[in-house]
Amino acid sequence: MNLHRFLARRFYAMSTVPAVKKTPVSQPEWFKPQATGAAKPGLKIYNSLTRSKNEFVPIKPGHITWYCCGPTVYDHSHMGHARNYVSTDICRRILQDYFGYNIKFIQNVTDIDDKIIIAARQQYLFEQKLSSVYTSVTPELVSKAKEYLAAYLSKNLPEFTGSNVKDDFIPWTQSLNNIQEIAKEKPKFPMYLKAAKTAHEAIYSSSSQASIDDFLAQIREVAVPQLDNEFGSTVTDPSIFRKLPSFWENKFNEDMGKLNVLPSTITTRVSEFIPDIIEFVDKIISNGFAYATKDGSVYFDTVKFENDPKHDYAKLQPWNKGDLSLINDGEGSLTTGQDTKKNQADFALWKASKPGEPSWPSKWGEGRPGWHIECSVMASDITGQTMDIHSGGIDLCFPHHDNELAQSEAFFDNKQWVNYFMHNGHLHIQGQKMSKSLKNFITIEEALKDFSSRQLRLVFALSSWDKPLDFKDSLISEVKSVESTFSKFFTNVRALNNDYKHKLSDGIIVSKKLGKHEKQLYDDLASAQEEVDIAFNDNLSSGQALRAIQDLISKANNYIQVTSSGESELRIEVLLSITNWTVKILDILGFEARSDRLGWADSNGEGNEASGSTEDIALPYVKALSQFRDSVRNLAIGKADVSEILKACDTIRADLINLGVSLDDRPNGAALVKFLNESEKQQLIEQQDAKIKALEEKERKKKEQAAANAKKEEERIAKSKINPVDMFKDTSVYSEWNDAGIPTKDAKGEEVSKSMQKKLVKQQVQQQKLYDEYLKSQ
Amino acid sequence: MNLHRFLARRFYAMSTVPAVKKTPVSQPEWFKPQATGAAKPGLKIYNSLTRSKNEFVPIKPGHITWYCCGPTVYDHSHMGHARNYVSTDICRRILQDYFGYNIKFIQNVTDIDDKIIIAARQQYLFEQKLSSVYTSVTPELVSKAKEYLAAYLSKNLPEFTGSNVKDDFIPWTQSLNNIQEIAKEKPKFPMYLKAAKTAHEAIYSSSSQASIDDFLAQIREVAVPQLDNEFGSTVTDPSIFRKLPSFWENKFNEDMGKLNVLPSTITTRVSEFIPDIIEFVDKIISNGFAYATKDGSVYFDTVKFENDPKHDYAKLQPWNKGDLSLINDGEGSLTTGQDTKKNQADFALWKASKPGEPSWPSKWGEGRPGWHIECSVMASDITGQTMDIHSGGIDLCFPHHDNELAQSEAFFDNKQWVNYFMHNGHLHIQGQKMSKSLKNFITIEEALKDFSSRQLRLVFALSSWDKPLDFKDSLISEVKSVESTFSKFFTNVRALNNDYKHKLSDGIIVSKKLGKHEKQLYDDLASAQEEVDIAFNDNLSSGQALRAIQDLISKANNYIQVTSSGESELRIEVLLSITNWTVKILDILGFEARSDRLGWADSNGEGNEASGSTEDIALPYVKALSQFRDSVRNLAIGKADVSEILKACDTIRADLINLGVSLDDRPNGAALVKFLNESEKQQLIEQQDAKIKALEEKERKKKEQAAANAKKEEERIAKSKINPVDMFKDTSVYSEWNDAGIPTKDAKGEEVSKSMQKKLVKQQVQQQKLYDEYLKSQ
Repeated sequence: MNLHRFLARRFYAMSTVPAVKKTPVSQPEWFKPQATGAAKPGLKIYNSLTRSKNEFVPIKPGHITWYCCGPTVYDHSHMGHARNYVSTDICRRILQDYFGYNIKFIQNVTDIDDKIIIAARQQYLFEQKLSSVYTSVTPELVSKAKEYLAAYLSKNLPEFTGSNVKDDFIPWTQSLNNIQEIAKEKPKFPMYLKAAKTAHEAIYSSSSQASIDDFLAQIREVAVPQLDNEFGSTVTDPSIFRKLPSFWENKFNEDMGKLNVLPSTITTRVSEFIPDIIEFVDKIISNGFAYATKDGSVYFDTVKFENDPKHDYAKLQPWNKGDLSLINDGEGSLTTGQDTKKNQADFALWKASKPGEPSWPSKWGEGRPGWHIECSVMASDITGQTMDIHSGGIDLCFPHHDNELAQSEAFFDNKQWVNYFMHNGHLHIQGQKMSKSLKNFITIEEALKDFSSRQLRLVFALSSWDKPLDFKDSLISEVKSVESTFSKFFTNVRALNNDYKHKLSDGIIVSKKLGKHEKQLYDDLASAQEEVDIAFNDNLSSGQALRAIQDLISKANNYIQVTSSGESELRIEVLLSITNWTVKILDILGFEARSDRLGWADSNGEGNEASGSTEDIALPYVKALSQFRDSVRNLAIGKADVSEILKACDTIRADLINLGVSLDDRPNGAALVKFLNESEKQQLIEQQDAKIKALEEKERKKKEQAAANAKKEEERIAKSKINPVDMFKDTSVYSEWNDAGIPTKDAKGEEVSKSMQKKLVKQQVQQQKLYDEYLKSQ
Repeated sequence: MNLHRFLARRFYAMSTVPAVKKTPVSQPEWFKPQATGAAKPGLKIYNSLTRSKNEFVPIKPGHITWYCCGPTVYDHSHMGHARNYVSTDICRRILQDYFGYNIKFIQNVTDIDDKIIIAARQQYLFEQKLSSVYTSVTPELVSKAKEYLAAYLSKNLPEFTGSNVKDDFIPWTQSLNNIQEIAKEKPKFPMYLKAAKTAHEAIYSSSSQASIDDFLAQIREVAVPQLDNEFGSTVTDPSIFRKLPSFWENKFNEDMGKLNVLPSTITTRVSEFIPDIIEFVDKIISNGFAYATKDGSVYFDTVKFENDPKHDYAKLQPWNKGDLSLINDGEGSLTTGQDTKKNQADFALWKASKPGEPSWPSKWGEGRPGWHIECSVMASDITGQTMDIHSGGIDLCFPHHDNELAQSEAFFDNKQWVNYFMHNGHLHIQGQKMSKSLKNFITIEEALKDFSSRQLRLVFALSSWDKPLDFKDSLISEVKSVESTFSKFFTNVRALNNDYKHKLSDGIIVSKKLGKHEKQLYDDLASAQEEVDIAFNDNLSSGQALRAIQDLISKANNYIQVTSSGESELRIEVLLSITNWTVKILDILGFEARSDRLGWADSNGEGNEASGSTEDIALPYVKALSQFRDSVRNLAIGKADVSEILKACDTIRADLINLGVSLDDRPNGAALVKFLNESEKQQLIEQQDAKIKALEEKERKKKEQAAANAKKEEERIAKSKINPVDMFKDTSVYSEWNDAGIPTKDAKGEEVSKSMQKKLVKQQVQQQKLYDEYLKSQ
């Protein structure tokens, strides 16, 4: 004890306290707080492996490893993708930003697949055999198109039995009044019908003025299957099979960006894992659960696995084990050699490739991975022998996910490769399954024309991630009403807050003391916080959470009402507290917050200032500058001709127009910089196109003129070679000539008149001049 | 079971599985995951009530009630405020945004206080009696000023004993050579001295042209105590005592806004709680722990409370119980009637007001609340009889917080009004206590001129909230180095990400497959996440967390280094994962994130939403591009050498730095585009200037060398023109020569030695060679 404290104690003891009850320098007992209320239940997640909600226990506390089945990239992504990936994104954000887990979110890109192979081949052959060959609709092309259509009809529409496609087809289609009935048995019937009608129209009905582009587009659907049949096996360049999925992978990422889906932590592409897959398959074989066949494929032995006491096959949907239609669908349309399998339920780990299919060398011969194996290999590469969560669409349960589990558990020789399997429920559109043939197929691009990204996210956030979702009118109205409730509340609070700040700056003292209304509202806020916590803990129920917040907002609106009626003065802090918390939860669900945290960022940028950072805005221009500099610098380093540098100067000028900037070159050597508005920009782009066309036209005319001149000169030279004495020696016109070669009698033997002879002499004199020149030139 | 499933089972059973091992329609057993590693220790907070770290248990799970002692508002807020409120803000944000608590954060504004009363009265009287009365420096005003100064000297500087203030004062101040010594005993001595000298200068030395505003400002300090003495008791308008604190409350909030301190959930002002305070005091009296005195004050009976077996007095610092200097300081400078207290340690709950002090009616007469009672009343109004956290500066422990505890526990008749008491450690400036008299007193406004808000927050975030903090040079350098590490990393990652996106848009497929380096880095990320979790759980240790993140960044920088050396290709996803997480933690600590989450928002607004139109933002870059193109184009038209074009490439590179863009040329011919923050930009500009200087120096030396060479050459040429026969014809040296021109006698007429003549012949032979060359060249 130091002197100061000693004296202080002494003083205290002497002057005020008669008897010291406790040693005054030690602190009294502290009572450890006891939490009130029942213990919280903890997070539960619906697990497809138990078909019930299970308490969530991560392998490593605070961390989650998560593998999500990504897209097969060969076409536009659609509302089914939106449903799966936005719902998954919402779950991921709740786990990450509400529960605070550090998540390693792995998503694959299936860039090797039978659908991709066919799409890539068809696109390539369409270009090679049609669009790059024909520049106009020639009879040859029309005749080919007729063949394609006939073949298409016989393969896909055998119901049409007419003998003359040209005259019989349309009446037959008009006679069909039970299309919906047929579609029940044969779902693709309407699609086939549409493709055939479109081609028929192009081939038989349209005028000859149809542009080649339109014509090709109309016959594409019926042409490509035939082209693929005929030439598919000749397509061998691997880059053809890489280019198409790469293009659609980028498109998919763009669509996800528009839907504000967080990018995955780690992306895995099948094409980058071939050696790993081969090794994985080999290990399954040596573990005794797979076998190679004579044709060079490898199959998983489902019966062996099923019978092994340590393993279970089809953990997710055991009742589907023998469903051949599901099994064969899972094997892909290019699969052959199925008869070499030991059991009908066995599935390919490695497929021998036929000509026209991409392939990689392996100990079993040239081939490619089966569908299911990719996920087992890529997920295991990152997560090892057990992961916390695997997710995907419900339609992937069997066979895809069940086969993944079998493969991986066969590989690791373990019991549980996945602890929690989360499946997003089906999406329906207006009560029906979404399907290309039902006219209710909506791409994300199309959906974003009718709905904002925020509205689409609200559709999914208001629904359960694991239940079927019907994208129907009543849901859309609910979404719009919820959106409007939130937006109006935020607008009101911002206005009230501005009003408050305005009073402040006027030196007006605004009371902050809470009365009974405000205290009630703080209690309401705490209740809503409780309800949201319960909702998120109960299977990440975003819809339940949003409805609790809506109730809170309705109470806050009542409060605003009460205070505006003058009953009591409004206290801004309670409204700001509610708004900040609401915005925080919305932000967690992926609805971006305004920078002032007093609302969500407006969708479509309506009413916002120019969005994006300086860097975002300047970047395209700076990139253009940097690239121009790169090209000039590289040209200079390579000591290129100045004309090439001037060409680079023209190119950057043209490129800038697409960025809305025009550089008008001026005689003083300093271009005038103009920022264009959209219409000016379009105008300049058109002008530029027109200029290019005009230049081409000029070039064409120049060539024509040159050809005409050349022809004329050729004729002149031919004429000058004729001796003037012989120039009238045409026996079909004349029959007698004098010595100078001037005709004296015509073909009929009649005298040539003197005046005519004079004319001919004049002509002969002119020819003499030409002839003399010719002789001189020789 | 439906038909479909039934058939599927039947088929499966018949075709593939000889014996059904398990009932195929039920799922196999699921194994509940077991978390690996030791159980997490849980959150602990340093609690002043136990002077140790206690496990944190909130009263209501998921919720925290928190009362923070707010400012007494009568002057500028200073670095001491910054230390307390920013440190508290960091703790609050960690609890709210990392641990996910819903926090009701209550902070008071002390707008009734002796310091405020004096400041308000003095400001009012200064205006009333001086600044609104005098429009010029009249003799009357000067004469008043002389009186104020004399009174000030006799009260505050009795050390000055001169008889003539005008003539004796300055010599006396000059004779003081032990000011620091005196200040040790009398800390305010330097401040008094300064005020008196300033007034003396205005009154006796300055020219008559001094403006009235300057004159009044200079005499203010010596005038107001006298004015208050004389007229203080006449100031009775309550609005005077409301206006001043309201002004400073707004100023305080502005300062806190600049420091990015979250506004409190609920603000309580003492002036709005008078009836509640009276009621509260009355209840303490009826509970037997307070008594009214004859003069109309009410005191808390510390001895009665101390002796009550149910209660403890001075729980926080029992060793200070009897410290009269602390006790009296807590009572305020306007306190009187202390002699009516029962015990010296008793403190005022209600103070009788004298004339010139604001007052409210009560059953004990006109008066105002004591200091400590306000917090008990206002906190209890919101939190009830127990709160989770109470916080404040360490200097408030005794008597303020100990008295609060006593009052509240006397009121509620309970044992523990506060569960966790958090105290921010002292702030020192360069090793010394901050003090107005020590010239190291820094207001927040002043601090923000030298440091950015981010730097100040880093100062506090890198330190422990509960430990003393020395704001010294070494800490400031650490802060700047940490800031630069983070900023540079973010800049690099954004540049690499832009580069990646650019490749994408060019259709280049960039691999995403993880190799060993990336997997290691993901492991490093997970370790850093663990360390941050441990740090936050261990008493909200933000400094420890930041240091863990710094280590991670240094590993990420190594990775960037390795990949840029070409050893392996860079994978962008791992860097984005690290950046996103880092930004998330920084955001939690109150360092605002850029909208793209790829860095913190720059203190100068860089990376924030840009203001102004796209055109305004893009224009400088487009200008630069256009000018570069102009110069390249003109050089090419003029068929300049490629070296000049390369020079133009270097020039644009240099110019862009001034626009905050760096182009890092790379071997592949495509420069990496980086957007720089302000300090990176300045650094590069300095580097560039140094380079230019070095080049200039080189150029200068080259020129000098060339000049020297030219001179040498000139001399050589001049020498070569001399006919060898004449080369020794210098009469100052020699007097006779032979025919060949070799000297035979020197100037003194003495013979030139043979050996010397031989030497000269040799020289002549050499000259002959030069001369021959010269003749040839002519």
